[in-house]
Amino acid sequence: MGVDPGLTRCGVGVVEGVAGGPLTMRGVGVVRTPADADLGHRLVAVEQGLEQWLDEYRPEYVAVERVFSQHNVRTVMGTAQASAVAILCASRRGIPVALHTPSEVKAAVTGSGRADKAQVGAMVTRLLRLDAPPKPADAADALALAICHIWRAPAQNRLQQAVARHTSKASRAPHPSKGRTA
Amino acid sequence: MGVDPGLTRCGVGVVEGVAGGPLTMRGVGVVRTPADADLGHRLVAVEQGLEQWLDEYRPEYVAVERVFSQHNVRTVMGTAQASAVAILCASRRGIPVALHTPSEVKAAVTGSGRADKAQVGAMVTRLLRLDAPPKPADAADALALAICHIWRAPAQNRLQQAVARHTSKASRAPHPSKGRTA
Repeated sequence: MGVDPGLTRCGVGVVEGVAGGPLTMRGVGVVRTPADADLGHRLVAVEQGLEQWLDEYRPEYVAVERVFSQHNVRTVMGTAQASAVAILCASRRGIPVALHTPSEVKAAVTGSGRADKAQVGAMVTRLLRLDAPPKPADAADALALAICHIWRAPAQNRLQQAVARHTSKASRAPHPSKGRTA
Repeated sequence: MGVDPGLTRCGVGVVEGVAGGPLTMRGVGVVRTPADADLGHRLVAVEQGLEQWLDEYRPEYVAVERVFSQHNVRTVMGTAQASAVAILCASRRGIPVALHTPSEVKAAVTGSGRADKAQVGAMVTRLLRLDAPPKPADAADALALAICHIWRAPAQNRLQQAVARHTSKASRAPHPSKGRTA
């Protein structure tokens, strides 16, 4: 599950697949919070929204966009705080969290770390065999994050998956996972 | 309850009192997380630590230092993310959260927005009638935040308290609060 953090629009995208294999979109959407609400209520709303996504899709990995402070000073704090909530929600459940920079994500899906939004949207559409680019852009970016994670961390994922398989065998998990969902 | 947010040391200080009346320290300490742990585990540890403080002291207000991005770029993200956890924990419980800037806090307790750490520590010691300045500085800063909130927002607090009193009467709360705790 990829999360493009934000207070006004927090993009969420769930992709299943393995590096080198076909990718399938499981879900995509946006958690929104009202711009006129106070920060505390917005953070609680982001938490509640992301908890619903985690409950519904139970992803094996969560990939969150790494926030840099050189961006717009007014919005960067909100983005950092929304990302903290996303990382917290996943970590509390024991789901491994990976952070990827925007340029890593762009490079992963388009081949160029300086690709624009339209190019990222077009490649996400092609890679997931969708009829049209997901909207808003935050939703497409979240899917791109999930794809980036599946492609960039195969060795790391294989190791974590082997551990998870071992653990779930040991605990006789009733729903062994068949694929890799990020 | 004042919170000086941070991942390595998150200062917490609980002060009871009203503007114009004597102030009493109820508790002070620091929530620490290991610098070599990953971000997710650190945020979960901050959450668990703050939840214990909130459970134990049940403050009426939580004051958190407002984070600015013009500070050190490497640490500001961690500070912003720790502050998000503090704001989230309080807001989830319905506790009003106030953000105060470092210079507002310094001005409130020392009279100067540009006072240094030693001056803030000395005034916190005097105002709370302590034997020595609380250490580390993050703990003293958290107490200063709580004092600042009690002094700066009396009108706002009175309004919120009246609402809270009305609500707690309506719900026949078993432990009506006698003072104002921030």
